[in-house]
Amino acid sequence: MKLKIIPVKTKNNSYYINIGFKIFNLENIFSPLKSGDRCVLVTNITISKIWKEKIVKYFLKNKIILEEFILSDGENYKTLNSVNLLLTYLLEKLHDRNSILIAFGGGVIGDLTGFVASIYQRGIRFIQIPTTLLSQVDAAIGGKTGVNHILGKNMIGTFWQPNAVITDINFLSTLPYKQLISGIAEVIKYAISFDYVFFQWLENNIKQILSLNTEVLIYCIQKCCELKSKIVNLDEREYGFRVFLNLGHTYGHAIEAHFKYLKWLHGEAISIGIVMAIKTSEILGILSSFDATRMINLIKNFGLPTVAPKDMNVQSYLKYMIRDKKSYSGKIQLVVPIKIGKLKILKNVNQDIIFSVIKKCII
Amino acid sequence: MKLKIIPVKTKNNSYYINIGFKIFNLENIFSPLKSGDRCVLVTNITISKIWKEKIVKYFLKNKIILEEFILSDGENYKTLNSVNLLLTYLLEKLHDRNSILIAFGGGVIGDLTGFVASIYQRGIRFIQIPTTLLSQVDAAIGGKTGVNHILGKNMIGTFWQPNAVITDINFLSTLPYKQLISGIAEVIKYAISFDYVFFQWLENNIKQILSLNTEVLIYCIQKCCELKSKIVNLDEREYGFRVFLNLGHTYGHAIEAHFKYLKWLHGEAISIGIVMAIKTSEILGILSSFDATRMINLIKNFGLPTVAPKDMNVQSYLKYMIRDKKSYSGKIQLVVPIKIGKLKILKNVNQDIIFSVIKKCII
Ligand SMILES: NC(=O)c1ccc[n+]([C@@H]2O[C@H](COP(=O)([O-])OP(=O)(O)OC[C@H]3O[C@@H](n4cnc5c(N)ncnc54)[C@H](O)[C@@H]3O)[C@@H](O)[C@H]2O)c1
Ligand SMILES: NC(=O)c1ccc[n+]([C@@H]2O[C@H](COP(=O)([O-])OP(=O)(O)OC[C@H]3O[C@@H](n4cnc5c(N)ncnc54)[C@H](O)[C@@H]3O)[C@@H](O)[C@H]2O)c1
Ligand SMILES: [Zn+2]
Ligand SMILES: [Zn+2]
Repeated sequence: MKLKIIPVKTKNNSYYINIGFKIFNLENIFSPLKSGDRCVLVTNITISKIWKEKIVKYFLKNKIILEEFILSDGENYKTLNSVNLLLTYLLEKLHDRNSILIAFGGGVIGDLTGFVASIYQRGIRFIQIPTTLLSQVDAAIGGKTGVNHILGKNMIGTFWQPNAVITDINFLSTLPYKQLISGIAEVIKYAISFDYVFFQWLENNIKQILSLNTEVLIYCIQKCCELKSKIVNLDEREYGFRVFLNLGHTYGHAIEAHFKYLKWLHGEAISIGIVMAIKTSEILGILSSFDATRMINLIKNFGLPTVAPKDMNVQSYLKYMIRDKKSYSGKIQLVVPIKIGKLKILKNVNQDIIFSVIKKCII
Repeated sequence: MKLKIIPVKTKNNSYYINIGFKIFNLENIFSPLKSGDRCVLVTNITISKIWKEKIVKYFLKNKIILEEFILSDGENYKTLNSVNLLLTYLLEKLHDRNSILIAFGGGVIGDLTGFVASIYQRGIRFIQIPTTLLSQVDAAIGGKTGVNHILGKNMIGTFWQPNAVITDINFLSTLPYKQLISGIAEVIKYAISFDYVFFQWLENNIKQILSLNTEVLIYCIQKCCELKSKIVNLDEREYGFRVFLNLGHTYGHAIEAHFKYLKWLHGEAISIGIVMAIKTSEILGILSSFDATRMINLIKNFGLPTVAPKDMNVQSYLKYMIRDKKSYSGKIQLVVPIKIGKLKILKNVNQDIIFSVIKKCII
């Protein structure tokens, strides 16, 4: 059985990311859990139905007390209201500071559970068991937690590190294809942003990834976790370096938000956002057309969208881009690739440039 | 003009506590604020009416942009619902991560504002301007933030340090006497817990404190801030040392909670709680009767309650005491004085002892 373990050091904490296939059959995978611990599995209906039994065994065998809290499925339940429901549950069941939350699901469950863990009695432990590719390579790593507000996505949250991440690629076998592809957008993001060799490797492993080849997938996820952890370690609280994780996200968030998070999956929107960042760099003469084309081809070859939605005008982008958490007093800040594997921050991008990039991408 | 400045170092942050009289006439008191900064004064109706003009001048003079967000007055507004109102306000006004919240009020405002600061866009800066004695000596110091839940007080919160604390004893001139006395309970707590000399000093300065003598008050508050900061510095996240700040609070919280936070002010309940902790120690033969009497006399001489409420039975105490955040798997943990200026942790206090202590205190 393949098992990769990545140690992660953060300011107040250090923990392990375990990556493997059917790893819940292994011993001692949940390093911080011990016999007698009280845990609450936070999950949604979809995931619970398919996968709960598989992991419950592990808890039983290790005499860890496991309760379950089930949320409705969907991004529109990542709200302060759901937070309140979970908090109320924890108080009703008299959970104290020693209880441990287990986020069992995709990024929605992970973000919400992490947030609740960070504010319940001023902070309790939690473990991430990400079940989507997106959460395995991104959302479960780095300690960003949060929920949405009607006026903005992820506007409420904290930085709160998990005490372990347990990633089993077996979960991906039941993940809708569209969701899998969505996760790949983040994978490509890492490659374009930080690692030429990984980019090349992706070009050569498209089929294997899409067919969930065990060895290839484990390597792919491991690589992403390492790249992300390195950046997070330099800048846990997003004062600087961490903006380098945002390739495609300023444009992408605008698309997601404009369609009220209903039409485009995160990865799909980010995929288009990455293309826009690439084009921005190209128009400004920073990125060569050769590299730009090669990047966009990789995105296309994975089946991800590269064309901007036709039913969203350029003005709509700006509205959201100015409100971005990373924007600074009305100026639009963007990270763009300067070549494959290397990024640059543009502190104040001219709105005309953004207009022409978006127009180019609509065709 | 007297101004005392206490530097505070925390894990991720360091800041100053400024203590003085009419200090808003001074320059550079708000160290982290600079011209052009966007601030939101979070306060309540009562405080805004009396004091807002006094501090607004400072902001105007220093060209700091100041908006105001007014909450209803009272502990029953320290809720997730108020949090949501403030978050919505911040988003509506397009506040970004550079905005700064100013908590202008007592502990209710301070706790809530600090909590919102810690979760708005994953954390923004905030400044404490405590206007009650209790918040000047306690709530504004140490980085505990939070709100109440129907099922428990302060059950939702974070550790989030302010970027400055500005304490003006002038605010106390309009504070209801009952509220002033309530704050003194915490002052006495510090003295009994940590500092014999300070205890003696309190015995000799009761009149001066109650009549708000400037010099005496500034010294008193400074002393409390120093004592609290020292403990917090050793244990920001309440894993150990910080329990030493809880003298009287396990009993006290039970009283507050039983009467739904309506009948007893925090300091009043804590005052009775301290008496109960003293008696616990005395009954167990840890504390001498001489010291016990001297402590209780100081509490009495400040006009604080020392007798337990008659309309609360012993069973009701236990219900809350077991649910205490500091309790550990059903055992009741208490800090008790072993002499004036020194505490001891009792990890598992026998319920019979607690019963007889409470009975003794009802008479
Ligand atoms: N914290 C971070 O750093 C970070 C980073 C990126 C994204 N995010 C957040 O993550 C969220 C998106 O995460 P996501 O893409 O995982 O979406 P998601 O959590 O909504 O999961 C997508 C869908 O797949 C289902 N699902 C999950 N695992 C499954 C499985 N194994 N088999 C079958 N169905 C399964 C879910 O029930 C859901 O319907 C967004 O809210 C985004 O803001 C957070
Ligand atoms: N964070 C911590 O470490 C900590 C420590 C202790 C207490 N607390 C919290 O603090 C709260 C109690 O704080 P508090 O005692 O300051 O109560 P409070 O904030 O409710 O203030 C008491 C009353 O005095 C009024 N007031 C405040 N300043 C005034 C002034 N200068 N003139 C006239 N009226 C004024 C307020 O409007 C209110 O009606 C509780 O919620 C408690 O949980 C927190
Ligand atoms: Zn993303
Ligand atoms: Zn207190």
